Amino acid sequence: GKPEQEVLLGKLLNQKEFDALALLLESLPQEQRLSTWQQIPPESRIDILVEMRSDPRESLLDAMSLDELDALFKDLDAEDLVELTESLPPRLVDRALLAMDERQRKYYEVAQQYADNLAGHWIDHHLYVLPQNAKVRDALRLMRRELPEYVDAVYLVNRAGHFSQAVRLGAVIGAPDHVHLTDLVEPDFSQVRAEENALDAALKVQRSGYSALPLVDESGALLGRLDIGVASEIVNEYYEGQIMAGAGMDEDEDLFSPVVTSAKNRAVWLGINLMTAFAAAWFIGLFEATLQEVVALAVLMPVVASMGGIAGSQTLTLIIRGLALGQVSSGNRKALLVKELRVGGLNGAIWSLVVGIVVTFWFSSPLIGFIIALAILMNIVAAAFSGVVIPIILDKLRLDPALSGSVVLTTVTDIVGFVAFLGIGTLILL
Amino acid sequence: GKPEQEVLLGKLLNQKEFDALALLLESLPQEQRLSTWQQIPPESRIDILVEMRSDPRESLLDAMSLDELDALFKDLDAEDLVELTESLPPRLVDRALLAMDERQRKYYEVAQQYADNLAGHWIDHHLYVLPQNAKVRDALRLMRRELPEYVDAVYLVNRAGHFSQAVRLGAVIGAPDHVHLTDLVEPDFSQVRAEENALDAALKVQRSGYSALPLVDESGALLGRLDIGVASEIVNEYYEGQIMAGAGMDEDEDLFSPVVTSAKNRAVWLGINLMTAFAAAWFIGLFEATLQEVVALAVLMPVVASMGGIAGSQTLTLIIRGLALGQVSSGNRKALLVKELRVGGLNGAIWSLVVGIVVTFWFSSPLIGFIIALAILMNIVAAAFSGVVIPIILDKLRLDPALSGSVVLTTVTDIVGFVAFLGIGTLILL
Repeated sequence: GKPEQEVLLGKLLNQKEFDALALLLESLPQEQRLSTWQQIPPESRIDILVEMRSDPRESLLDAMSLDELDALFKDLDAEDLVELTESLPPRLVDRALLAMDERQRKYYEVAQQYADNLAGHWIDHHLYVLPQNAKVRDALRLMRRELPEYVDAVYLVNRAGHFSQAVRLGAVIGAPDHVHLTDLVEPDFSQVRAEENALDAALKVQRSGYSALPLVDESGALLGRLDIGVASEIVNEYYEGQIMAGAGMDEDEDLFSPVVTSAKNRAVWLGINLMTAFAAAWFIGLFEATLQEVVALAVLMPVVASMGGIAGSQTLTLIIRGLALGQVSSGNRKALLVKELRVGGLNGAIWSLVVGIVVTFWFSSPLIGFIIALAILMNIVAAAFSGVVIPIILDKLRLDPALSGSVVLTTVTDIVGFVAFLGIGTLILL
Repeated sequence: GKPEQEVLLGKLLNQKEFDALALLLESLPQEQRLSTWQQIPPESRIDILVEMRSDPRESLLDAMSLDELDALFKDLDAEDLVELTESLPPRLVDRALLAMDERQRKYYEVAQQYADNLAGHWIDHHLYVLPQNAKVRDALRLMRRELPEYVDAVYLVNRAGHFSQAVRLGAVIGAPDHVHLTDLVEPDFSQVRAEENALDAALKVQRSGYSALPLVDESGALLGRLDIGVASEIVNEYYEGQIMAGAGMDEDEDLFSPVVTSAKNRAVWLGINLMTAFAAAWFIGLFEATLQEVVALAVLMPVVASMGGIAGSQTLTLIIRGLALGQVSSGNRKALLVKELRVGGLNGAIWSLVVGIVVTFWFSSPLIGFIIALAILMNIVAAAFSGVVIPIILDKLRLDPALSGSVVLTTVTDIVGFVAFLGIGTLILL
């Protein structure tokens, strides 16, 4: 009820649980969301907005007055604005930039030089940097001043500002003041290039065992770092995107977007699907005469299409994951295809036998049983082939296999299924 | 080619890129995988195995001799064995435990008290703990001795060993030796309960801004911690599991598992799908007479089913994500259902009109156009309803909506689609 929710709101605000507050706002219908937003004090608003998905966030930003927005922009730092930029009209971005101090504005411009799918876009500037000839006492001086989130190493740069090596804070703390940091460096400390794919870079950070990795430009100049908090957001957003793409949506979709917006977002996907469904229907239409003659074929044809669709989607899912992880490459494509064809052949043989027997008894016709068995075997093998080949081709064309893979695959398995079943039926029965 | 791969292998081994080595092994067909494994020195093997998915990992463990396994177990720590346990037969787990030192064996036993979907299973024991009356100098002494990965705070415990508060290392480093740590504590430092769901706990760690959170038992006793490296693995595995579940597989599926194993893993899903396909076929069979009379209905019926399936899967995907994130609760279920029904009504109206017009011209029959339009509208609205209700019910039943949601949904939209279309057709045309 209402009072309960206000107690929860107060508690979350008190404990600065901005992520939970973002989630709470996302889970409210529009009207309640706006009235709850009014209860949130201005100083907490920016921290909540940056945690929100962009569609629900925009529903709040759109409802704010210029005065409220100015209050929001007062203490904005570069990283917050990078996060908000996609949700703000350009004139409001300019207004926010005007309110920003010189240094933060410069940081913002560096980040905007890189698209949001590149590591450089997500740069963080809280870092410990020292020249290569620095000593332990210099590092300790830095640490005594401030220790930002996710800092567990000091980065050493050469005179040109290029990243050279890193020293773990643990090594610094234990060592005498006069020791050179270069005597304490970590062997093989990884770095991230600003031009690198953001997901690859984020996974590299998550796996490094460090809380952050240095971020360098093409020349090797140290620009900043990518920390594991941001890296985790990038990775989680990627996975959410993959899951939502399977249904033709994106990860920013608002649970309570206005009905018209939501219908529009989803209409494209329904339209694409309609075209493929009509294409399949057209192929079925080629066999009208057969269907009129043997109505059992009409009854059974969805079974053939669906077995192919399921078998294909299994292969497809495995290959899409493999492509994303880098498990699938030109070196093992052929071996993969052979293995999936074998799996398809085996499952095709088993299940076509099962279906053949069931159908033989159901329709008291061994002939129809034989026809559907053959069609299912063909369709499952075709599905295995398509499940490997389609995502690899889409990936080469730089289309997201998670988004378009299943539509293309289903079109193939529908058409192969219907044509094989009705085609063999026509040949044998008419 | 072969020599290239050996160069890569040597490079990755040199740089201790265990995660990349795990990925490399996963991407190799069985025979090559085993021969590559032979080239990896015994001392690097355990670090690679713990990074691998369990199916491909088992393909390596199964091929190792007892001597090789004993070499593997020599320096095993508790966390490695926790990770390996699911891949080892019990007698080998016992053998590994025998080779372990007392403390690590005890740690292992603590972890095994919790199922792998609970936070306690993933406990890490590298932590800084001090009594509540400790001073800055005590914390510095700890830090000078060793600074483990992902440690950015000192945890204070009371006499009973219960976690009380935490101090950031940054606060310690800047402060004079004699200051009490209790004067430097962080307000509202979160903790994780061992009995808590592992995913919720891992997300809490990722969002905390800290590299780890203290892990306590039901009584509040400090057991250890959950660090952000492990947390990220838990979250990534969860997302991979969701993606694979959509095709009835699990996240451990090996790209190159033996054909029979792989066929068996996938057969269950094909079998379940076959039953739902037969159910749909049975419903179609009720209308044999109608299909014989009006063959156009047979041609078009997959279009009706597929439009419902797509619309339903969009709603389903949104709700499943909402359930996982905690966006969907008893408080907003009704509002969500109303919104999705409206979206379904709107998209249903638009697309049934489009399909109605196309079909009217295609089959020169306004009547068939009207019938399919009505059936599609009904099916899309039913799909919106099912897309909200099915995952919520599955969740209540403690079944994973990501695994079974789409099968149940497709069964509903297939049957509603076929029955609505052929039923209305029978009423109007016969």
